Order: sequence, then structure tokens, then C-alpha cells
Amino acid sequence: MTGTLHILGVGPGDPELVTLRAARIMAAAPVFACFARRGRAGHARSIAAPHLNPAAEELRFEYPYTTDLPVDDPRYPAAMTAFYDESAAAIAAHLRASRDVALLCEGDPFLYGSAMYLFDRLRGAHPVAVTPGITAMSGCWSRAASPMVHGDDILSVLPATLPAEELAGALRRCDAAVVMKLGRNLPKLRAVLDELGLTGRAIYAERGCMEGERILPLAERDTTPAPYFALVLIPGRQGTR
Amino acid sequence: MTGTLHILGVGPGDPELVTLRAARIMAAAPVFACFARRGRAGHARSIAAPHLNPAAEELRFEYPYTTDLPVDDPRYPAAMTAFYDESAAAIAAHLRASRDVALLCEGDPFLYGSAMYLFDRLRGAHPVAVTPGITAMSGCWSRAASPMVHGDDILSVLPATLPAEELAGALRRCDAAVVMKLGRNLPKLRAVLDELGLTGRAIYAERGCMEGERILPLAERDTTPAPYFALVLIPGRQGTR
Repeated sequence: MTGTLHILGVGPGDPELVTLRAARIMAAAPVFACFARRGRAGHARSIAAPHLNPAAEELRFEYPYTTDLPVDDPRYPAAMTAFYDESAAAIAAHLRASRDVALLCEGDPFLYGSAMYLFDRLRGAHPVAVTPGITAMSGCWSRAASPMVHGDDILSVLPATLPAEELAGALRRCDAAVVMKLGRNLPKLRAVLDELGLTGRAIYAERGCMEGERILPLAERDTTPAPYFALVLIPGRQGTR
Repeated sequence: MTGTLHILGVGPGDPELVTLRAARIMAAAPVFACFARRGRAGHARSIAAPHLNPAAEELRFEYPYTTDLPVDDPRYPAAMTAFYDESAAAIAAHLRASRDVALLCEGDPFLYGSAMYLFDRLRGAHPVAVTPGITAMSGCWSRAASPMVHGDDILSVLPATLPAEELAGALRRCDAAVVMKLGRNLPKLRAVLDELGLTGRAIYAERGCMEGERILPLAERDTTPAPYFALVLIPGRQGTR
């Protein structure tokens, strides 16, 4: 007798953009878990708040490093592996006691989500059910009122953490693009888009579908660092019919 | 005084994968509209059924051609333009009479959705609000229990309708991919994936999140034509942490 791990996408930010299925599971789960930066409420936790079982036990997994340690620091991989091992163990203890656990994930869990590392660790020993969520990019292009891909268009989704040459190569070959994980990579991305002549088509979206939402043409955004969860949309061909 | 056009993503198939927001708007809208093939119920209509206002008026837009006319037939573009013009006019008549209209769209409206053509025609004259939906690809990779993109992975979303050389070029350059619009393009895609050595990683998904769902390794799928809405998933790097 084991509990089920429910990995729940809670969408891009607006609590009303949660699915009926995710809301039903959250309302019933005796335990919920979420990732958060140290000292922050956690995006997924905030989105889910109105839907959670008020009697549920909370497991909070605080990332050991965020912006205070560069990703290429040799201590980073080992610290993250230990962090995911410990998080998985904390969930497994509840599952072994036959308690279902709802793991809350902003956006969609299997698109750049930390939940994938817990899925990999727990799927062998316990039943795991994944509920998809509205992605941040869908939330942002809906709020921007910007159709993205028509007909034979190719859409590329890529992280701004890539080196400038790789960003340029990928952006040159697609019709539409979404660049995720902006953060301090915004000036680099902006230079690449300027070089490719794409800045005029690009839309900057910060806190899409949340309080404090900012959506504007990228050309009007200064190049000071962006929040990590900001993204840039480059819509494909428009009005072809 | 004009009504509002609500363009609603209703998700990949399971009526429980509708958002709270879409369900609220559908329950209240005095008019709803949907696209469908001739003689078919329409996917979006079927997904939305349990949520619709039972007293709502229905606008049904049947595509003039589907598989009976090749997309490159010279009659096709003109027929489609007229079809979208007429569909937009039918909606506009309700909006002018101050009635809100809910336009139902499977998946997410701005990712290869027909609703974009009505959005383009109506946004100037009427308020239009877009509610994002769970994409077919998110629904399928969740059901396939297959994490898609980690870390610095690039995801490409592309239609199988592209020529073989373009498919091969795009697939060579990304880490993970989703190939949409399979239909009669499945044998062509399969040959490209075999050539690139990607068939072993590819997952075939048909009617994902719906009754009659079939999800299996692409290598085990014969190459007879697939339904138009079937897709192929090629997950990126796995288990890097």
C-alpha cells in the first residue's frame, strides 16, 4: 500500500488558470510539496493557495543555491543532486505511509520543471500521475494578444542561458520562438536579436498572468537584468489568411 | 455596447483538463461557437460539452474542405478565406447585439489554432479576451510519463506537413521535438527519423487524454496514415541530475 505522487502543473500565475483536475487533487491531498527560493513564498505555492486542502501538511523544498552561486561552480551539481535526493526522500516517507502527495509546479511540470528530477527518483517505487499545466509561454502570448504559430511555422523554445552563438543559430532557423530563463541573460539576448533584426518583432513579458504583469515591445525594455521567469516571445508569420 | 469574444482553450481532450476560467466563461456565455469537420461533432465541442451553458445558442463552423481537397489546390485558399470571413461575421452579429460569444478551441488557441483567423478579423471592432489552454503536446507527454526538456535543452515544435529535407534540418538542430499534424505525413516523418537515428527515442501519441488513447514507442507503430491530431514526441536529455 503506497500513496500516489501527483505532479501537478498549476499554470502560469493566475489561480483561475489551474485545471479542474489539479484543483480537485489539491483540495483532497493530505500532503503537498513545493519548491521555492530561500526566503520566498514560491510561485507554485502562491498560485495554488486558494485551492489547497487547509488541513494538508506542507513540504517545502528550498533550493540550496539560486543566484548566489554560478551554475558552473563545481559545488553546484553535487549540491543540487543532494537537494533532489533529500526532497525525494521526504516525499517517499509520506507515500510509504499511504499518504498521497501533491507536488505543485508552476507552468507545465515536464517543460523545464524541477519536478522532473523527483519524478525520475520516485517513479520506480511509487505510482506517479502527472497533470499537465498551462505553460508560462501560453499564458504570456494570450495576455500579449499575440498569435504565435500558423500553418507550417516552426516554433523553437530555448533558454537564454545558451551562449550567444547558439542562441543566434537557433533563432535564425525558426519562424517563431520563445526565449525562457531571461534573468541576467537579457542584455546578451538583446544583442543577438538586434544583430538578427528580430528586436522589432519581439515582445518582453514579465510576471505574465500575475500581479505586477509587464508586457511590452522588447525594443521599449531597457537591458537591465530581468527576473528569471521573464520571457521573450517572437511571433511567427501573421495574418496569412 | 458590444459583447466580448472569449477565445477559450479547452485543452487536449479530457474535460477535466479545462481551466477554472474557461469553465466559468463557458457556463455563463449565451452563445458558443466551434469549428468542426463536416459530419463530425468537433473535438473542442466534445471536450466542452459538460461545461456549456445548456441554454446557450450554438454556432457551428464546418470547414469547407478537409482531406478531400489537397492544401495546394488553387481553390483552397479562397475557400478558406471566405469561410473565416463568414464565421467572423456570424460571431460579430452576436457581439453587436451585446451578446458575449465563447469560441471553443482544442489545445491552446494561439498554437496552430483556427481561432487566430477569427481573432485577426474581430479584434479591431470588439473586445477579445484569450484564455490559454493545455496544449495537446503537454497532454501527451504527461500521459506518456516522459519528461521533455531539462536545463539548456532546445525544444522545437514543427508540423509534419513540412518537406522531408526541412523536417530533417530542424530535427538535427534541436535537443527535443514535438512533431504535430501527422496524418498522411507519418511515413515521411518515420523515414526522416530512421535516417537521423531518432526513431528509438520517439513516442507516438494518438488521441492523447481522450477515449481511445494510444501511446506507444514509434518503432512499434506501423506506417499507415495517422489521425491528423496524432503527434510524435522526441524527449530531450534525460536524468541529468
